[in-house]
Amino acid sequence: MQNKKKIINDPVYGFIGIPSNLVFDLISHPWLGRLRNIRQLGLTHLVYPGAVHTRFHHALGTLHLSNLAIETLRSKEIPISEEEADGLRAALLLHDIGHGPFSHSLENVLVKGSHEHITQIIMEKLNHEFGGRLQTAIEIFNNTYPKNYLHQLVSGQLDLDRLDYLNRDSFYTGVSEGVVSFDRIIKMLNVKEQELVLEEKALYSIEKFLIARRLMYWQVYLHKTVIASEQLLLKIVERARQRIQLGDKIFASPSLLIFLEKIYTTVELSENESLLEAFLNLDDTDLWTSIKVWTYSEDKVLSDLSKALVNRNLYRIELQKEEFAKIQIQEYKELILQKEGVLEENLGYYLFQGRTRNLTYNQNLENINLQKKNGDILPFLELSDFFNSTEIANPIEKHFLCRFRF
Amino acid sequence: MQNKKKIINDPVYGFIGIPSNLVFDLISHPWLGRLRNIRQLGLTHLVYPGAVHTRFHHALGTLHLSNLAIETLRSKEIPISEEEADGLRAALLLHDIGHGPFSHSLENVLVKGSHEHITQIIMEKLNHEFGGRLQTAIEIFNNTYPKNYLHQLVSGQLDLDRLDYLNRDSFYTGVSEGVVSFDRIIKMLNVKEQELVLEEKALYSIEKFLIARRLMYWQVYLHKTVIASEQLLLKIVERARQRIQLGDKIFASPSLLIFLEKIYTTVELSENESLLEAFLNLDDTDLWTSIKVWTYSEDKVLSDLSKALVNRNLYRIELQKEEFAKIQIQEYKELILQKEGVLEENLGYYLFQGRTRNLTYNQNLENINLQKKNGDILPFLELSDFFNSTEIANPIEKHFLCRFRF
Amino acid sequence: MQNKKKIINDPVYGFIGIPSNLVFDLISHPWLGRLRNIRQLGLTHLVYPGAVHTRFHHALGTLHLSNLAIETLRSKEIPISEEEADGLRAALLLHDIGHGPFSHSLENVLVKGSHEHITQIIMEKLNHEFGGRLQTAIEIFNNTYPKNYLHQLVSGQLDLDRLDYLNRDSFYTGVSEGVVSFDRIIKMLNVKEQELVLEEKALYSIEKFLIARRLMYWQVYLHKTVIASEQLLLKIVERARQRIQLGDKIFASPSLLIFLEKIYTTVELSENESLLEAFLNLDDTDLWTSIKVWTYSEDKVLSDLSKALVNRNLYRIELQKEEFAKIQIQEYKELILQKEGVLEENLGYYLFQGRTRNLTYNQNLENINLQKKNGDILPFLELSDFFNSTEIANPIEKHFLCRFRF
Amino acid sequence: MQNKKKIINDPVYGFIGIPSNLVFDLISHPWLGRLRNIRQLGLTHLVYPGAVHTRFHHALGTLHLSNLAIETLRSKEIPISEEEADGLRAALLLHDIGHGPFSHSLENVLVKGSHEHITQIIMEKLNHEFGGRLQTAIEIFNNTYPKNYLHQLVSGQLDLDRLDYLNRDSFYTGVSEGVVSFDRIIKMLNVKEQELVLEEKALYSIEKFLIARRLMYWQVYLHKTVIASEQLLLKIVERARQRIQLGDKIFASPSLLIFLEKIYTTVELSENESLLEAFLNLDDTDLWTSIKVWTYSEDKVLSDLSKALVNRNLYRIELQKEEFAKIQIQEYKELILQKEGVLEENLGYYLFQGRTRNLTYNQNLENINLQKKNGDILPFLELSDFFNSTEIANPIEKHFLCRFRF
Repeated sequence: MQNKKKIINDPVYGFIGIPSNLVFDLISHPWLGRLRNIRQLGLTHLVYPGAVHTRFHHALGTLHLSNLAIETLRSKEIPISEEEADGLRAALLLHDIGHGPFSHSLENVLVKGSHEHITQIIMEKLNHEFGGRLQTAIEIFNNTYPKNYLHQLVSGQLDLDRLDYLNRDSFYTGVSEGVVSFDRIIKMLNVKEQELVLEEKALYSIEKFLIARRLMYWQVYLHKTVIASEQLLLKIVERARQRIQLGDKIFASPSLLIFLEKIYTTVELSENESLLEAFLNLDDTDLWTSIKVWTYSEDKVLSDLSKALVNRNLYRIELQKEEFAKIQIQEYKELILQKEGVLEENLGYYLFQGRTRNLTYNQNLENINLQKKNGDILPFLELSDFFNSTEIANPIEKHFLCRFRF
Repeated sequence: MQNKKKIINDPVYGFIGIPSNLVFDLISHPWLGRLRNIRQLGLTHLVYPGAVHTRFHHALGTLHLSNLAIETLRSKEIPISEEEADGLRAALLLHDIGHGPFSHSLENVLVKGSHEHITQIIMEKLNHEFGGRLQTAIEIFNNTYPKNYLHQLVSGQLDLDRLDYLNRDSFYTGVSEGVVSFDRIIKMLNVKEQELVLEEKALYSIEKFLIARRLMYWQVYLHKTVIASEQLLLKIVERARQRIQLGDKIFASPSLLIFLEKIYTTVELSENESLLEAFLNLDDTDLWTSIKVWTYSEDKVLSDLSKALVNRNLYRIELQKEEFAKIQIQEYKELILQKEGVLEENLGYYLFQGRTRNLTYNQNLENINLQKKNGDILPFLELSDFFNSTEIANPIEKHFLCRFRF
Repeated sequence: MQNKKKIINDPVYGFIGIPSNLVFDLISHPWLGRLRNIRQLGLTHLVYPGAVHTRFHHALGTLHLSNLAIETLRSKEIPISEEEADGLRAALLLHDIGHGPFSHSLENVLVKGSHEHITQIIMEKLNHEFGGRLQTAIEIFNNTYPKNYLHQLVSGQLDLDRLDYLNRDSFYTGVSEGVVSFDRIIKMLNVKEQELVLEEKALYSIEKFLIARRLMYWQVYLHKTVIASEQLLLKIVERARQRIQLGDKIFASPSLLIFLEKIYTTVELSENESLLEAFLNLDDTDLWTSIKVWTYSEDKVLSDLSKALVNRNLYRIELQKEEFAKIQIQEYKELILQKEGVLEENLGYYLFQGRTRNLTYNQNLENINLQKKNGDILPFLELSDFFNSTEIANPIEKHFLCRFRF
Repeated sequence: MQNKKKIINDPVYGFIGIPSNLVFDLISHPWLGRLRNIRQLGLTHLVYPGAVHTRFHHALGTLHLSNLAIETLRSKEIPISEEEADGLRAALLLHDIGHGPFSHSLENVLVKGSHEHITQIIMEKLNHEFGGRLQTAIEIFNNTYPKNYLHQLVSGQLDLDRLDYLNRDSFYTGVSEGVVSFDRIIKMLNVKEQELVLEEKALYSIEKFLIARRLMYWQVYLHKTVIASEQLLLKIVERARQRIQLGDKIFASPSLLIFLEKIYTTVELSENESLLEAFLNLDDTDLWTSIKVWTYSEDKVLSDLSKALVNRNLYRIELQKEEFAKIQIQEYKELILQKEGVLEENLGYYLFQGRTRNLTYNQNLENINLQKKNGDILPFLELSDFFNSTEIANPIEKHFLCRFRF
C-alpha cells in the first residue's frame, strides 16, 4: 500500500505535512490540481512580479495552519476527533475550489454567482465520488456542524484562510509589511462554548493583524494598477461575448467558448453535469491563450483591448473619494472620439468609471472575542484602546475612472 | 516626461531598482513581458508547488545582481562607464528571452536550436527597434566586447545568472539548502587584466556555492518526478505532431500550430519575420490550454498522455547508473501490450528509456580564479583542500526508464 | 596606510559598511567599545533570552540606516555634503554613548541627569581629542545645525534611532511582530524646506510602524516581568548605597564604588575629568559581578535582594490602571512582617508600588509630515483614517505593586 | 499549582516549548541561569558584534531540537518513553553547564580538566538535589544508557548540540552561510538497532552540513582576530596568577580570586563543595570587571595586556601552515625589547607562537550512517561522490605568531 504520509516543501512555512489519507486523496484529485493554474491574485503580478502563486498553494497553506490549530486546541484539551480534524482540513483544502480563471477578477462574470456557491456544488459532487468521506467537511463549510468554532476557523473574522492569504500574498508580492504572526495568533486560539476565542494577550497581535490587512488592501488588493488591469480583463470578456452574440467566430478553447456564448448561473452549473465539467476544465491559461489570439481580431475594440493587456499598456486610472465631475468626463470623451476608428457606441470600452469598496472594515469586528485570565469573554473592540468601532464600521469606497492609452 | 526610475518589490531581494531609461524600456517591452507566462522551472511545480516563478522574475533578479556587482567593482576602482553598465544590465535582462514555453523542457524541440541562439536573434531585432542602444549589450552577450569580465558576469562559472537562479529556485521551491550568499560572493568580486577574479577569502563561499548547486541538481533539477513530467510533455508534443502529419485536425492556438506542423530551425527563425513573431506569441499557456483539449482527443495515445499530465498521473520512473536490463524491459513491454487498445507501434509512448546528465561538474572549475592579498591569481581548485579536480571533472550520467501508469 | 573601509557582518541588516575614516576611528574608540558590554535592553533577557544585544550593536545599526538615508536623499537631489553625511553618521554612532550600566534601567540613578546630557559631555571631550572633527555631529545632535532634517533623523518622531531599535529589539527578543519596514520607510524620506517629510504613500507603513511600536511597548519594554527585574535592580543599588553610607564595607569595582558612595550630577561629571573617566569605565559587568558578591552580604536586605536577582526569583508584580487599594497593601504588609528577620524599617524593599508610563503616545504625532504628489505637506494625523489624535494623545499610565517572593 | 508548560520566544526557531515539569525546573535553576552571562563564543563579538548570544540560549536551542527529534522518531514508530524523552532533554539542557567564563577560551585554564567532566560533576550534584530525577539524563550523557541513539543525539557526528550551535552561531555572527537545515536533517533521522541513522536522501544535506561547518571554522571559530583576542585573555590570566604568586594584591571578585590563587583540578572540584560553589559563581562578568581594574595595575605587563584587551588593541597575528622562522622571531624580539620598560623575562607576554587545529575533520565521518530504502545501512563516505576519506581525515593545523601592538 502506498505511503500517503508525505511532506511538501513550502517557501512560506518550510514544510507542510499530509496527515491523513483523505488529505492525500484530495490533494491528488484533478479538481484541486486545476488550481495549480489559477493564480491567487489574478493579474496582480503585473504590478508585483513575484505574485504568481496559485490557489493550489494557498489551499495547502490553509491545510498547514489547520494542522497547527488542531494541535494547539488539543493541547488545551479541546476534544477534536480525527474525523473532525479531517473535516476541517478538507473544508480548508476545498474552500476555494469554486474559483474560476483569475480568481476574484472574473467572479460572478464567467458564471453568475459566488465562488462559494460553486465550491458547495463541487464539494457535493466530490463527496459522492469519495463515498461520503467529505460529509463532515461539508457541514463545517456550510456551518451546520454543531461545533461552531470549526466553521469559524474556515470562515470568520480571523480564520485560517485569511491568515494564510495575508501571509502568502505579502510573501510573494514582497510587501513584507503584510506579514502576520500566524504562529503566535494560532497559539492563542481557544474555544469557549463551541465558539472560537483568543487569549487576552493576543490583543496587540490582532491590532497588528488588522493593520497589516488594511495595508495589504491599499497596497496590493486595491492597488490602482491592479484595478486597471482587472477592468481591462473584464472589458475584454464583455467584448468577446458581445462579438460572439453578433455572430463573430472567435478563437477560444471549447470549454471557454461555452461560457462566452452564454452566461450560466451557479444553479445551472449544479444541474448540468457536462457544464460543470466544462467549468472544471477552465483555468487562467484558457483566457490568456485566447486573449493573445484576440490581439489579431478584426474587431478593433477586441484587438485594442487585448493588445493593451498583453502588452501591459493598461488603462490610465484615477482614484478618488468623490464621483468624477461630468465636465471632466466629457472632455475625455471628446479626446477619445477623435482617435481614428473609435465609434461612439464603443466608447464605454475606452472610458468608464466604477466604484471599489474596501469591505474589510464593515464587518463586525466585535466578533473577535478575547478571553481574560479569569475566563470572561470580551469583544476585541472593548479591549483595544486604538480601534474605534465607529470609524472601522464604515466601508471605504472609492470611485475610479479608466481611460484607454492610445 | 515619465519618471522611469522606479523600484520593484521582490520577495528574494526586497527591492529591485530600475537605474536607467534603457532598463525601463526593456522591462516594458512585450517581448520581455512574454516571460511573465513562462515558468522558470517548467513543470517542477508538480513536485514543489511553490516553484511557479517566471523567467521574467529571474531576468529582474539578474538585473538586481548586476546593480550590486557594478557598485562593488566601481568601489574597487574598476572603471565601468554608464554605457557598459547598461550593456551589462541589458545583456542580463535579455539573456533568457529566447526561451520558449516551459523553458528547458521543450528547448530544441519546438524549434531546432538552443535558446541562446534564439536570444541572439531577438536581441538583434530589438537593437534595431531600439536604434542601436543594445549594441554594447550584444557584444557583451556574444563575448566580443574587449572587457572579458563583463561577459563572465553574464555567462561563466560563477555568473550572475547562476547566482540568481540558484537563489531564486531554492527560494521558491522551498529547498532552502540551495540558498547562496550572493551578496557575499558579489562583494568579493574583482577584476584583474579584464578577467573576473574573487578575493581569496571567498574560497569557502565558493565551496558552499558548488555544494548548493550540486544539491539543487539532485534535489530539484534532476528530481525523478520532474524528469517524468518533462518526458510526458515531450511525448505529448511528439504525438501531437505525428497526428497532424497524419492529417488529424488538432486544437491549438494559431501560433502553436505553426510549430507543431513543421519543425523549424533557429536559422529559419532569424530569416522569417512572421515566424519569429509567432514564436514570440508563445508561452506556457498555449501548450497547457491545448493539452487540456487533447485529453478529449479521439487518438487514444494523445488522450492518454494528455490526461496523465493534466491529472498528474505521471510516468512511473526508475533511475540508475547502469543501463536497464533488456529482460526487464521486455517484461514491462508484455504487461503494457496487454492493456486494452495499446498498439505495438505506439509502445514507445508508454515505455521508454533515456539518459540524463548532470553537466555541472564537467565544466572546468579551474576557471574560477582567486586573488591572494599579494595580487597573485590562483585557480580555485589549487586552493581548495576539498574539491578534487578528477572527481568533479566527471559528469554524472543516469539512465531512466519511464512506464505509463494505466 | 591602513584601509579603513570595511564591512561588518550584522544579523539584522546583512552587512554594515564603514564609509569613512571618521566612522572607523569612532568605532575603534574605547569609549564606544565600552557599549559592547552594555546590553541594549538591560535585564529584558530574563524574559526574552535572546535579548542580549548591546548598545554597541545598536549604534552600528543606526550607522547603517544613516547610510541608506543619505543615499535615498541624495538620489532625490537633496544636497548633503560629505561633511554633513559624516556628521549625521557620527551623531548616530554616539547618540547613546552616555548610557551607563543596564541602559535605561539605572538612568538618572547612578548619575543624576539624563543619558542625553552625558552624551553631550562625552561628545565634547571626544571632539577635543579628535581635533574638532565632531563639530558638525555635535551641532546636528544639539539641533543647532541649520538643516533641521539632519537632527530629525537622529531624534524625531520617526528617526533612525527608533527604526533601528524597534527592528533590532524585535529581532533579538524574537517578538517578530515588532519588525518595521525600515527600508521602505527610508526610501520614502524626503526633505522640504529643511524639514523631514515622507511621501504620502508611506501612510500605511507609518500606521504599521506605530502599531509595531505600541506592541513592543506592551509586549517587551513594559512587560511586567521586565519591570519587576528592573525594580529589583534599583532596590539593590539603593540598599548598597544605604549600607555604604552607614559605614559598611561593600565589595565593588573601584569605579562603581565611586558612584555608590555619592550621587553625582551630570554637571559634576562634565567638570571632573577623573569622575568622567570612572563613569566611562563602567558597564553591566561591574554591577553583575558585585551583585553576585552581595548575595553573601551580612546585611539581610542586600543579600535577599541580590539572591533574588541572581537566582531570577523576581518580585511578584501586579499591574493595573487604578491605584492599589490601601487595604490590600496593608494585608500584604502584615504577611511580610511575619517573615523571619524582616524589619519594619526595611519593608519598602519587600513591598512597594510605583507607576509606569507608556510615553509613546503623548508625543505630538502631527510632527510626522507627509508630502502629497502635488507637493502639499499634511500632518500624518490628518491623512490617517485610523489614528485619532485624542486617543493617542493620552499617555497610558499603569500602577504596579511589587512583592518579594520569600 | 503553577502551570509549567510555557513558550519561550527565540529569534532562531520562533518559539521553544517547555514540555515538562523537569525541563521547567532545570531552566529555573540558578546553575543553568548562570549561563545567561557566559557568551557562547567568548570574545568572538570583538570581530562579529552580533555574536553576544549565551550558553543559556544555546541550551534552550538544543532543547527545542530534542523536541523535534523526539516527535520525528516517534512518528516513525521508535518507542521513546516520556522518561527517556525527559532524559534526553535534560542531558541537552545541561550538556554545557560545566563551562566557565568565556566558554572554550579559558577551558582547562581556570580549572584543570575538560568542561565535560565538570558537567558530569554538576549533573551528579543536581541529581541529588532533584531526588534522582536526572538519572536517565546522566546515563544518556555518559553513554551508559542502553539505547545508544539517545547519546548520539547529545554527542555524535551529527548531534543536536552541533546542529544548534552551527545554526545559532551563524545566525548571531551574521555569517549566514553557516546556516544548516536542521529541520530537514532532523526529519530524516531514524533508528536502526539502537543506532542513529539518516535516510539516504539526507546525503546532500549532510554534505552541506559538513561544508557549512568547515566554513564556520575558518570564518568564525578560527578567525585570526578571534584567536588573537583569546590569546590575549589567556596571557592576562597567566600574568595575574603570576603576580598573585609573587605576592601582589590584585583586585578580583572573591570567587575568581580562588581560581587565580591556585590551579585546581576537576577532581578537586568534585570533592570540595565550596570550591564547586565558587566555580558556579563565576561568569564572564567577573573576569571583565577585573580586567578593567587591572588596566590600572602597577605591573606594566598586566596593565599593558589588560589595556590592549579593553581597548581592543589586540595582538598582531600571523597564521601559516609552517612553523615561523627563527630569524623572523628574533627580529621581532629585538624590536620589542627596544620598547620602554619591556623586560626580557616578560617577553613571552609580548611575542609568542602557538598552534591551532581544526579538529573537525579528523573525526571518523564514517560514523554518519545512511539507510537506503531497502533498509541497508551504508556509511556516509561510501555514498558521497564528493567527500574523500583520506583528505578529511587529516586535521588541519596552523601555526600562529602573536605580537603586541605598542
